Amino acid sequence: MLITFEGIEGCGKTTQIALLHTYLEKKGLNVIKTREPGGTTFGETLRKVFLHTNMEVYPLSELLVFMAMRAQHVEELIQPALKEGKVVLCDRFIDASYAYQGYGRGVDLGIIETLNRLVTKGVRPNLTVLLDCSVENGLKRKAESADMDRFEKEELAFHNKIKKAYEKMSKADPKRFFVIDGSLDIDTIHRTIRKKVVALLKNYGI
Amino acid sequence: MLITFEGIEGCGKTTQIALLHTYLEKKGLNVIKTREPGGTTFGETLRKVFLHTNMEVYPLSELLVFMAMRAQHVEELIQPALKEGKVVLCDRFIDASYAYQGYGRGVDLGIIETLNRLVTKGVRPNLTVLLDCSVENGLKRKAESADMDRFEKEELAFHNKIKKAYEKMSKADPKRFFVIDGSLDIDTIHRTIRKKVVALLKNYGI
Repeated sequence: MLITFEGIEGCGKTTQIALLHTYLEKKGLNVIKTREPGGTTFGETLRKVFLHTNMEVYPLSELLVFMAMRAQHVEELIQPALKEGKVVLCDRFIDASYAYQGYGRGVDLGIIETLNRLVTKGVRPNLTVLLDCSVENGLKRKAESADMDRFEKEELAFHNKIKKAYEKMSKADPKRFFVIDGSLDIDTIHRTIRKKVVALLKNYGI
Repeated sequence: MLITFEGIEGCGKTTQIALLHTYLEKKGLNVIKTREPGGTTFGETLRKVFLHTNMEVYPLSELLVFMAMRAQHVEELIQPALKEGKVVLCDRFIDASYAYQGYGRGVDLGIIETLNRLVTKGVRPNLTVLLDCSVENGLKRKAESADMDRFEKEELAFHNKIKKAYEKMSKADPKRFFVIDGSLDIDTIHRTIRKKVVALLKNYGI
């Protein structure tokens, strides 16, 4: 079971993943949480270099370096974990590439589709939780934390594109996407997500 | 005019590029030398992180991170230089991906072809100089220099695969590849290369 979390900067993904992780562990499930970009030694090393330096990077290069990290992430961590029957919670996955490099930076969506298919080797999220919040609130939350990264530093127009991209994608695949209003209080969001996840696990006989 | 240099580790590419660069500059040509992986701030930063750390990297991830660097290299440096009429000398390019990640690591050659086409945007070498030397001699030369990288640390069998791959590729495209015995003395190799390059430039009216 692979559950991915998506949304714009500062939408609260990290908090919600941590809460769900604790909840599922307490239920006795074998659950791991991971993130993109990152998740492996290779990914975390590149993430650090890539996100927090000011060097110029073209959209296609950005896409390819994210795909390199995803290939490693799937092969080294996600696929083995799923084979062992673990529940994997992942902060950003395939959809982030369409949203950021596709809708955000203008890379052809067909190229992203081809590369996503190549690097995921058939691994698809069973559920994608989309935390929907306003760009203003998201960025405000991020601005309060130090050390803004490559994406957090982008202009409002960029983040609005990302928000719209996620809306579009979630409407196109309502079976996989579970959209939640990220402006609700943390506990309400958590209870909504866990209800959804528990029902899903039951469906899968877990 | 794009001239690439290929060959196994320690075959003497770097020395020959430097000699040719000096020679062409003295002739009054507008010439730049660059390398892969690397060539741009993005590429050189990733090269350092990637080649000189011991983290585990799967073949597909390795290929994709090299392609990310190549995409940036072509768009930021090679294509603009060629448009300005410069002669570009490049230490490793498209063929290295087939040799190392394809024949060496077993990644499907069709995937490499697709990615090379995507990232090079139609830029092809006018000439590829292949310095052919024995694996033993190449590695001996490298072992004398400190700080061996990810590839230099590979076993003999791996380097033999690379050598054979370059032989195969040069036979398949004899018009583009110019193969030179890398065991000859440095000056003889340099004179052979520059004779070839001068003839080529003449053909192109440069």
